[in-house]
Amino acid sequence: MFHHVKELQFNARVSRPDPKFARLLLQQFGGPNGELKAAMQYFIQAFPCKKAYPDKYDMLMDIATEEFSHLEIVGATIQMLLTGVNGKLKAEAESSELMQVMDGNGKREDFIHDAFVHPHFYIEGGGGPMLTDSMGNPWSGNFINANGDLTVDLRSNMGAESRAKIVYEYLMQFTDDPLVKESLSFLMTREIAHFQMFEAALESIQPNFPPGILQGDPRFSNKYFNMSDGVSDARGPWNEGVSTQLGEEYCYVQKPAEYVRETQGLTGEEVQGTARTIETNQEKSAALAAIRGAEINDSNPMKDMQWNAYDA
Amino acid sequence: MFHHVKELQFNARVSRPDPKFARLLLQQFGGPNGELKAAMQYFIQAFPCKKAYPDKYDMLMDIATEEFSHLEIVGATIQMLLTGVNGKLKAEAESSELMQVMDGNGKREDFIHDAFVHPHFYIEGGGGPMLTDSMGNPWSGNFINANGDLTVDLRSNMGAESRAKIVYEYLMQFTDDPLVKESLSFLMTREIAHFQMFEAALESIQPNFPPGILQGDPRFSNKYFNMSDGVSDARGPWNEGVSTQLGEEYCYVQKPAEYVRETQGLTGEEVQGTARTIETNQEKSAALAAIRGAEINDSNPMKDMQWNAYDA
Amino acid sequence: MFHHVKELQFNARVSRPDPKFARLLLQQFGGPNGELKAAMQYFIQAFPCKKAYPDKYDMLMDIATEEFSHLEIVGATIQMLLTGVNGKLKAEAESSELMQVMDGNGKREDFIHDAFVHPHFYIEGGGGPMLTDSMGNPWSGNFINANGDLTVDLRSNMGAESRAKIVYEYLMQFTDDPLVKESLSFLMTREIAHFQMFEAALESIQPNFPPGILQGDPRFSNKYFNMSDGVSDARGPWNEGVSTQLGEEYCYVQKPAEYVRETQGLTGEEVQGTARTIETNQEKSAALAAIRGAEINDSNPMKDMQWNAYDA
Amino acid sequence: MFHHVKELQFNARVSRPDPKFARLLLQQFGGPNGELKAAMQYFIQAFPCKKAYPDKYDMLMDIATEEFSHLEIVGATIQMLLTGVNGKLKAEAESSELMQVMDGNGKREDFIHDAFVHPHFYIEGGGGPMLTDSMGNPWSGNFINANGDLTVDLRSNMGAESRAKIVYEYLMQFTDDPLVKESLSFLMTREIAHFQMFEAALESIQPNFPPGILQGDPRFSNKYFNMSDGVSDARGPWNEGVSTQLGEEYCYVQKPAEYVRETQGLTGEEVQGTARTIETNQEKSAALAAIRGAEINDSNPMKDMQWNAYDA
Amino acid sequence: MFHHVKELQFNARVSRPDPKFARLLLQQFGGPNGELKAAMQYFIQAFPCKKAYPDKYDMLMDIATEEFSHLEIVGATIQMLLTGVNGKLKAEAESSELMQVMDGNGKREDFIHDAFVHPHFYIEGGGGPMLTDSMGNPWSGNFINANGDLTVDLRSNMGAESRAKIVYEYLMQFTDDPLVKESLSFLMTREIAHFQMFEAALESIQPNFPPGILQGDPRFSNKYFNMSDGVSDARGPWNEGVSTQLGEEYCYVQKPAEYVRETQGLTGEEVQGTARTIETNQEKSAALAAIRGAEINDSNPMKDMQWNAYDA
Amino acid sequence: MFHHVKELQFNARVSRPDPKFARLLLQQFGGPNGELKAAMQYFIQAFPCKKAYPDKYDMLMDIATEEFSHLEIVGATIQMLLTGVNGKLKAEAESSELMQVMDGNGKREDFIHDAFVHPHFYIEGGGGPMLTDSMGNPWSGNFINANGDLTVDLRSNMGAESRAKIVYEYLMQFTDDPLVKESLSFLMTREIAHFQMFEAALESIQPNFPPGILQGDPRFSNKYFNMSDGVSDARGPWNEGVSTQLGEEYCYVQKPAEYVRETQGLTGEEVQGTARTIETNQEKSAALAAIRGAEINDSNPMKDMQWNAYDA
Repeated sequence: MFHHVKELQFNARVSRPDPKFARLLLQQFGGPNGELKAAMQYFIQAFPCKKAYPDKYDMLMDIATEEFSHLEIVGATIQMLLTGVNGKLKAEAESSELMQVMDGNGKREDFIHDAFVHPHFYIEGGGGPMLTDSMGNPWSGNFINANGDLTVDLRSNMGAESRAKIVYEYLMQFTDDPLVKESLSFLMTREIAHFQMFEAALESIQPNFPPGILQGDPRFSNKYFNMSDGVSDARGPWNEGVSTQLGEEYCYVQKPAEYVRETQGLTGEEVQGTARTIETNQEKSAALAAIRGAEINDSNPMKDMQWNAYDA
Repeated sequence: MFHHVKELQFNARVSRPDPKFARLLLQQFGGPNGELKAAMQYFIQAFPCKKAYPDKYDMLMDIATEEFSHLEIVGATIQMLLTGVNGKLKAEAESSELMQVMDGNGKREDFIHDAFVHPHFYIEGGGGPMLTDSMGNPWSGNFINANGDLTVDLRSNMGAESRAKIVYEYLMQFTDDPLVKESLSFLMTREIAHFQMFEAALESIQPNFPPGILQGDPRFSNKYFNMSDGVSDARGPWNEGVSTQLGEEYCYVQKPAEYVRETQGLTGEEVQGTARTIETNQEKSAALAAIRGAEINDSNPMKDMQWNAYDA
Repeated sequence: MFHHVKELQFNARVSRPDPKFARLLLQQFGGPNGELKAAMQYFIQAFPCKKAYPDKYDMLMDIATEEFSHLEIVGATIQMLLTGVNGKLKAEAESSELMQVMDGNGKREDFIHDAFVHPHFYIEGGGGPMLTDSMGNPWSGNFINANGDLTVDLRSNMGAESRAKIVYEYLMQFTDDPLVKESLSFLMTREIAHFQMFEAALESIQPNFPPGILQGDPRFSNKYFNMSDGVSDARGPWNEGVSTQLGEEYCYVQKPAEYVRETQGLTGEEVQGTARTIETNQEKSAALAAIRGAEINDSNPMKDMQWNAYDA
Repeated sequence: MFHHVKELQFNARVSRPDPKFARLLLQQFGGPNGELKAAMQYFIQAFPCKKAYPDKYDMLMDIATEEFSHLEIVGATIQMLLTGVNGKLKAEAESSELMQVMDGNGKREDFIHDAFVHPHFYIEGGGGPMLTDSMGNPWSGNFINANGDLTVDLRSNMGAESRAKIVYEYLMQFTDDPLVKESLSFLMTREIAHFQMFEAALESIQPNFPPGILQGDPRFSNKYFNMSDGVSDARGPWNEGVSTQLGEEYCYVQKPAEYVRETQGLTGEEVQGTARTIETNQEKSAALAAIRGAEINDSNPMKDMQWNAYDA
Repeated sequence: MFHHVKELQFNARVSRPDPKFARLLLQQFGGPNGELKAAMQYFIQAFPCKKAYPDKYDMLMDIATEEFSHLEIVGATIQMLLTGVNGKLKAEAESSELMQVMDGNGKREDFIHDAFVHPHFYIEGGGGPMLTDSMGNPWSGNFINANGDLTVDLRSNMGAESRAKIVYEYLMQFTDDPLVKESLSFLMTREIAHFQMFEAALESIQPNFPPGILQGDPRFSNKYFNMSDGVSDARGPWNEGVSTQLGEEYCYVQKPAEYVRETQGLTGEEVQGTARTIETNQEKSAALAAIRGAEINDSNPMKDMQWNAYDA
Repeated sequence: MFHHVKELQFNARVSRPDPKFARLLLQQFGGPNGELKAAMQYFIQAFPCKKAYPDKYDMLMDIATEEFSHLEIVGATIQMLLTGVNGKLKAEAESSELMQVMDGNGKREDFIHDAFVHPHFYIEGGGGPMLTDSMGNPWSGNFINANGDLTVDLRSNMGAESRAKIVYEYLMQFTDDPLVKESLSFLMTREIAHFQMFEAALESIQPNFPPGILQGDPRFSNKYFNMSDGVSDARGPWNEGVSTQLGEEYCYVQKPAEYVRETQGLTGEEVQGTARTIETNQEKSAALAAIRGAEINDSNPMKDMQWNAYDA
């Protein structure tokens, strides 16, 4: 179960209202690489490893819960940046109804103008945050990656933390409020911390490549197809020398269309540039399937299941 | 900030795996009236009332946090109902690669068949819950209603709790597992409890009708337009007698198209059936705007804002 | 069937073009609390009560049809606010092709500038309304709440009307065109009227709480969990005294995590603070199920169904 | 304004409940080529031509209103096909709570099984239609095409009617209920009728090709690029002979990549195979811009706009 | 398979950065009528006609591939219009961290201001294009129309090309960069070319109306319902004289509601104004079904399928 | 520009129709980790590095183009698995219209039954693939991650390839057709190959951690917050010892809520467990900003931009 304490994890402060920056900051509230995405992603990934991998479950729940706490920091900052909007909508409602003429000092004209910064804040959210990104797109379950395999999920998370980090880096360039920058810097740094935690967890699982159980076909794992030709067909460690994980020698296919025709659609390819064979591959897959299958099945009984015990 | 304790709020248990019911239960995990929707709705509504209405803020955060805890119960139940899927996907991966013939006992055929219960569980989520409803639609920020006004938000919440309640009621008819039913009954009952809490909170705000600040135009608040005619033009307390909140006498417009033509598009209507006037209305709006505006503005200073103090 | 008469229900007028306000007004055309949402929600809710509850069917169709008529008013107002855009896109197309230099008076530059108010109006909709909200989000079937139970649906509608009302209230603050304000005031007032109609209809159904058939478990309907602690743990009528509908005494759980551990996940709770029991509950559920089931089943024959008779 | 009469435009009937076909039929209720899409598309297209093209406005509103009436027919049919579901959900709610054992005749088991036909019908919609397609995807404003130009919109409509027609044709193959087929046949035929109406309206506008105002560059309007090569590079009236509307001779580019390199990215192309020139083109664009711009601008005054007059 | 050559199909150039126009141009990158929509629509339509209609398959793949090439032109143009943004985000990141005061020349203030043109470009895409329209809405599979019937699909394509054409026409009015206009003019003209190709392909299929196989019911194909009445009930070739394709005489129903009541919901209608009969219709449907079914079935063997042969 | 050759990159074959597996395979056609997602992600990432990093541009376009070629393989396989559906829809249309009784052999009943495998295939797509996942959800631009920084994008791609790999691994378990498995195995293996290419490319960029320019705050980069407590608070290399990339000693915060209160929301924290300081950090950020900014800005002139030269 969750518990909430009213203190924020980080002392979020704001120097002055800034609805424009509030709009930008929505990107990390309801955007695809924002805090809710991170929180929900780790939370959902945690379910299938509750029994079989309780240490990873603990880590995922620690970080998920921290991300919920960051979501709160972002929301609190947006709310402080919007200070004045909610109150004004109440206080000026009446003047609206009276349809009075402009009062000379232009304040009302300014308020009307402000609404175009981000209409959602003014006419739908009423001066509070909404669960959208900076363009008003609603948060989507599509943002979540959770595939029931830690060697996949942890890599998804390293990608996700990288993206969250760069969005904070970009955001920091669009405010000059030092108090807001403090919070952004804290939040950005935590993405760096989390990245390394997920990486360490991944390394603690061996083997972890390729992700999942099945080994790749050695005829196709070290081919590079030169599908885009023209002035610069670059060569680099991604298509020459040996591959990073499997240590196979790259085979560079210069003219893929011709090659495909000649090989009848790559049928009849021989294994080359690698010591792996189809047979060793199958053995490795079978062995790994046995191990991982047992880890999971043995820790998940098939009847009278209870999520947890209670230790009063 | 949030904190997580590994014990569930309610002792969720499951008698045996049931991927079919797991699919149905997704409706309350990632569906429009599910637990995440409730949690996020109250969480987001809480931000704008943090300073001005700390008691309502406390209530919203209490219930939001409970809903997150319910989300966890629903997810845990889905996970237990899916017991076996994740492990099987690992253990049988190798047999898949070997492309062996069926083993006579049909187990593999059954597993293939199972996938059609809900493909997402088998080929995307890998045996864990996904953030969708029972049809696979992703959760959407569109589900959230938060409009910066407690007389609106609390009514939205009463509607939301009603819907969440009925979905649990429907769900209970599609499982015969007594342990699952226990959890569903608990969750359903909490919607009933929350409904009454929101209702009490709404009643503690006076006046609360109409929601917001502006009073309605007395020429149009008690008209009923008979826009659908035919065999049964029903009369009832919604179009005869006095209205529930404003106590105005209903005026029934029998033939709206003709009436609209005669009144030149309802211009020149007179106030009738009510003691309210345009003038008293404006006074009431103005008075309320002054009060509500002050409540909010006075508690939200416009510079050097800090979300909360820390009491070590 | 529907019929359209070319006269608007309300005499919508506009003093001068204002594409900026047209953008804001989209919120009630294609937004989540706008007129199409309302119209479609009531229209869809009406289907299941056609036979069993013809009086409610009539009311839902009356109001749904009025909301379609309001959608037309909103669209017409947007179109009038966009006057000039469609014609300009046609008339200046040629000057665009000639790639002539600016004509000194800056008119063309202004037109280019205008497009950034809301690009959709200029480069997609061609000067007419689009079925989106003010941020350009497409209208979604997700906006609709219809759950096959009037005690739920009518509450959803009261929430929906409250939200529609406040959005109009907010919108009225962002235009100074008195003619536009007249239409907005009419539309806002109708939401107030509809709210009361739905409330009256709900009251005419007894019992209507809890919504649906099933009664809540008396062990859990009057507990309040203090899930958010810190400086202000507020007490109020939502967690002390008796509950609004069931009249049960609240039990306040000060430290939920500890309480949950002590009670082994709330198992073994006793009923307290209420006269309801599990037994009386079941009787009440059973009785209500019998009544409501009969109301619906008896009026819906299972074969040779015809939607309606025709009375020439 | 709209008006509703309780009689359906077509006498929709159903022989017996069939939740499976109800599911399929959702495709035309809330799907991308369904009745709501058609209704809303024509309704929205109508706004910008209200003043300048009142005859087209009338046609669009006639057909839009008929499509709303068809939406009602589809919804009514779905409701009748679902007969029994709503009542059963009420009547059996209580038996669910009692957690009674199966009653031998398997009825309850069947009901549980039924829910997997389309879970939305059973646990969310409560036995009524929902605004989704047959897979549960919510209706989307994205379905609408309306671009502020009748020579475009009417072509969009001819495409839309074609799609709606084929979906009904497909649907008719999946039911054997002759009463349902009658309604489907009526609805399908009306798409054929509407197609021809839109085509006639398009032909009444001259010139109508290319759609819009601007003429195409004669250097590029008659080239055919052979971008997909291999066994069958087909020649046909779409890449040889003269083009359908402009009557230009096709130029077939056999090897596009080489051609593009040789022509420096198609710069320096000459006009060939057509009598059109850049100059005559500009004249035609300018003339058309003047005419269409005037048609629209002259009929839409820029101030004190009123949507319509009222003739009591 | 696809191949990429680094040269663009058209020599896209840009005179100077213009993030504002880059935003507008997104409409054709990730918008509903943009290049990706066109490419994917034709690509997907091609699959079912690969075997039975290889000439149409070739045409669809030619045009699909050209549209992918156009997508690249649009993306390249957006990227050039955004020149400076990506580099600035890198170079100024550090100055952001140092939280230095403004440097007097206002450059930094300008950069902050720029972000509001289109926040996605600055804080999410990092100075590159995103797969959205100009309002930030993500591209959706909903944009695609592909219905497994060429007489439908080709009509969908004529609609799609019309819309793509008008959006380019509109876009050309919002930039004064002659180099950008050159590219837009090329792209716009290609839509005109493609329209005619699809039209020619449609004409090469006979009969092609009604789309699909089933003929319409002659009782309902020539009725016009006057569903919108009022000042202007227009008559025109869409409701008087003979219909465009079937050559049937229109029957104008002046008062649909009364007519429907009188005819008991259109039951008992007689065929009038047409030589078609229900019998001749069925014969025509049957004959066409036999032909089209055979064309498809005969070219698609039911086992040991191979997509294509390889000719080295 | 793109070019298409009719031969597939891999010789996709299918033994017999299997609409059920066709449905599952949609997951990699229009799903979140499918081929279109991969193709579009790399294609879009390529734009901003065209000038500054032509070698990475080449690699991204090579792989993007291969993914388009894989999309074609998946689509072709789906189409072959659906063999018979399109033809049947044509051939049986007529029999539908005749409303004939069942023909004894049940074939027609089977066809009706088949539609429920995946209604989209039968009543919308007409026997061809659709741009959705296996549950019918439309492909979404939300699936794309592209953030204008190769140290982020390449990590996103490693995550994406991992997910694509596991989905193929899962899919292989749900078909027994050896020909289909061959294609799946090829496609799965290519994800493994691509993963390593992206990893090699990332390693060729130094420094690449943290992603982007800004270094993290050394006070917060090595803290681990124990946010989820209970039975198992696991310790592991992710929260003890030194971090993977920065080599900092972890500081484990046992009781975060108390710690946060004591530190006044983490203000006043000291750097500990690391040699990094705020000062060295800023120097590193500044140096990196200068380098990366120059790399990009120097290769992207600010006027008269041309995407590429043409070498005939």
